[in-house]
Amino acid sequence: MRINGQKFHTIWFDINHPETVKIIDQQKLPFEFCIKSLHSFHDAFVAIKDMTVRGAPLIGVTAAFGMYLGLYGCTSELPADEYTNVLAREMKTARPTAVNLSYAVDLVMNALQGCDSFAEMAGKALETAMQLKQSEIDSSSAIGDFGLTLIEQVAVQKPGKPVNILTHCNAGWLACIDWGTALAPVYKAHEKGIPVHVWVDETRPRNQGSKLTAFELLNEGIAHTVITDNTGGHLMQHGLVDLVLVGSDRTTRRGDVCNKIGTYLKALAARDNGIPFYVALPTSSIDFSISDGLTEITIEERNGDEVRSIEGKDGKAQVVPDNSPVYNIGFDVTPAKLVTALITEKGIFAASEESIFRLLGSQTSV
Amino acid sequence: MRINGQKFHTIWFDINHPETVKIIDQQKLPFEFCIKSLHSFHDAFVAIKDMTVRGAPLIGVTAAFGMYLGLYGCTSELPADEYTNVLAREMKTARPTAVNLSYAVDLVMNALQGCDSFAEMAGKALETAMQLKQSEIDSSSAIGDFGLTLIEQVAVQKPGKPVNILTHCNAGWLACIDWGTALAPVYKAHEKGIPVHVWVDETRPRNQGSKLTAFELLNEGIAHTVITDNTGGHLMQHGLVDLVLVGSDRTTRRGDVCNKIGTYLKALAARDNGIPFYVALPTSSIDFSISDGLTEITIEERNGDEVRSIEGKDGKAQVVPDNSPVYNIGFDVTPAKLVTALITEKGIFAASEESIFRLLGSQTSV
Repeated sequence: MRINGQKFHTIWFDINHPETVKIIDQQKLPFEFCIKSLHSFHDAFVAIKDMTVRGAPLIGVTAAFGMYLGLYGCTSELPADEYTNVLAREMKTARPTAVNLSYAVDLVMNALQGCDSFAEMAGKALETAMQLKQSEIDSSSAIGDFGLTLIEQVAVQKPGKPVNILTHCNAGWLACIDWGTALAPVYKAHEKGIPVHVWVDETRPRNQGSKLTAFELLNEGIAHTVITDNTGGHLMQHGLVDLVLVGSDRTTRRGDVCNKIGTYLKALAARDNGIPFYVALPTSSIDFSISDGLTEITIEERNGDEVRSIEGKDGKAQVVPDNSPVYNIGFDVTPAKLVTALITEKGIFAASEESIFRLLGSQTSV
Repeated sequence: MRINGQKFHTIWFDINHPETVKIIDQQKLPFEFCIKSLHSFHDAFVAIKDMTVRGAPLIGVTAAFGMYLGLYGCTSELPADEYTNVLAREMKTARPTAVNLSYAVDLVMNALQGCDSFAEMAGKALETAMQLKQSEIDSSSAIGDFGLTLIEQVAVQKPGKPVNILTHCNAGWLACIDWGTALAPVYKAHEKGIPVHVWVDETRPRNQGSKLTAFELLNEGIAHTVITDNTGGHLMQHGLVDLVLVGSDRTTRRGDVCNKIGTYLKALAARDNGIPFYVALPTSSIDFSISDGLTEITIEERNGDEVRSIEGKDGKAQVVPDNSPVYNIGFDVTPAKLVTALITEKGIFAASEESIFRLLGSQTSV
């Protein structure tokens, strides 16, 4: 999508500089637009860990490119399989919640089977990373097309008036490679001339909503309004939200959705007000190994400083007394019962084990 | 309650300085503790309007003292009733949501009936303000005693373990004169040696939770943890909250509760997890003239800058891009169906018209 009118992906590789992979530094957005070069496995690891890149699909692709960077020009004296196992194990620890991370690393590891040299491995890893990147773009675009039909259904019921969509956190193209997940249908609708307006939850503690989602929508010229995370319920009570659209970091095989902390509260409000609550996700983020999201997903506890102080354009503001303890949990689980439907690149389906298994067919044995 | 070990009220009058009323400047808390002198009606009006004082009971008492300041030493050439009507009308506009404001002003106006001079009026106004102040203290203390029984009920079920209470915004003594509303039961429990731990919602956009509630609890030595407003649902899903205790700016005669934006979302989560959701309030904040909180309460829209930038210890942090619109609504309405019970100075009762009318008896014609 666009930044200052120019088209970008969130991560890219230039064959003229095979020793680097470029990313948009999402720590500095929206107040500063910076492109960062990753030169090593370690750079990629740190970019994921410190959230210079974030969002489940982008984390996966960055991890795959990171494996490539670890192999390109490698001169390690360790046996190749031992070396790659070390990389794989380490990369998977960069962030605990995103299933895409493990998925991407395993994809690369599988591709390396049978390679004879680090050079050959680097080639395979790059090829895998590039394929994964393209498949994420295709995936996002397909999610957008399927989700568009849901927005169109609302639009025909209120001709001339904008469809009001509430979203939490950033599940836009910055969390992916292009298009996004939750925002992909919004972009497709806007492209098609359907008037949309997005309520953007600021999404404390890191404000990915007010910082990244607002930035994306601004750059695409889409009407939006930033609100505090406390506001969505009130808006829904007053008929100001037509549908809720969020992303997911991990979805269980029965349709429980692990997403940014606070998502669950919006799902409750949507149900209480009869508003559809949709979750947009690539099927790669469905974790078939788990069923009950509440008991089986380990949720990332993050540094308390994110709650204690808020970083903004012009510095940090401390909002908690020095001696008060804080607790910072990154995600919550929205039970399947609150999810109207899952929007994936393979279609829209109910958040239930039966529906997920039926529609994904052969994938269920992954 | 205590600040740095010393006992304070939020507002006080010293007969040796009859031209001033003193307040704690709540804009500067918790990072700076300042006492401010109000010298005039206008000072009191501004203190309410700009939230130097806030919280429904304190707003009421400040308004009453403000009426006094407008009358003390008054040399207006307007007829007394015309002059006092102007003051009353203006004072009621200082904040739109709190019913206590009108209630307090009307109380003073009634007391002025039959007075012959500004001097006599000033005396009556002061007397009324002092009485109202004392009745708010008594009220808070009684709320604390009634609410304490609910905490005790939980405590006996988990001996030796702290009772976990979640609260939103600041409904502590800083919002009142002493004790508080939602926090009064917490203080009474702590005084009685019952172990309590409070989850403090930071309460965006003004962070009254992380700033004022945390400050109060710190100064009383009560265990607490500050969380983002997004976190409560997750905590409730995981059994980490025993009860929710919030205040109310206005409660309708059928028990709908208007309180700080975001309260409704916590009430939904409490219901979904079978956790009691209690609202503590003085009966003076019940508005018998309205029934349906959702359609009949005008909610205050506040300055968008509160969402755009966050003020902290060390300055402001802007968290929204310059060109993104924001929306800042101050309160929401939690429907009576989500309220387990109302804790008042007259007892604990169900959030229903029948129950409210029965228990408040003669007040129902107010």
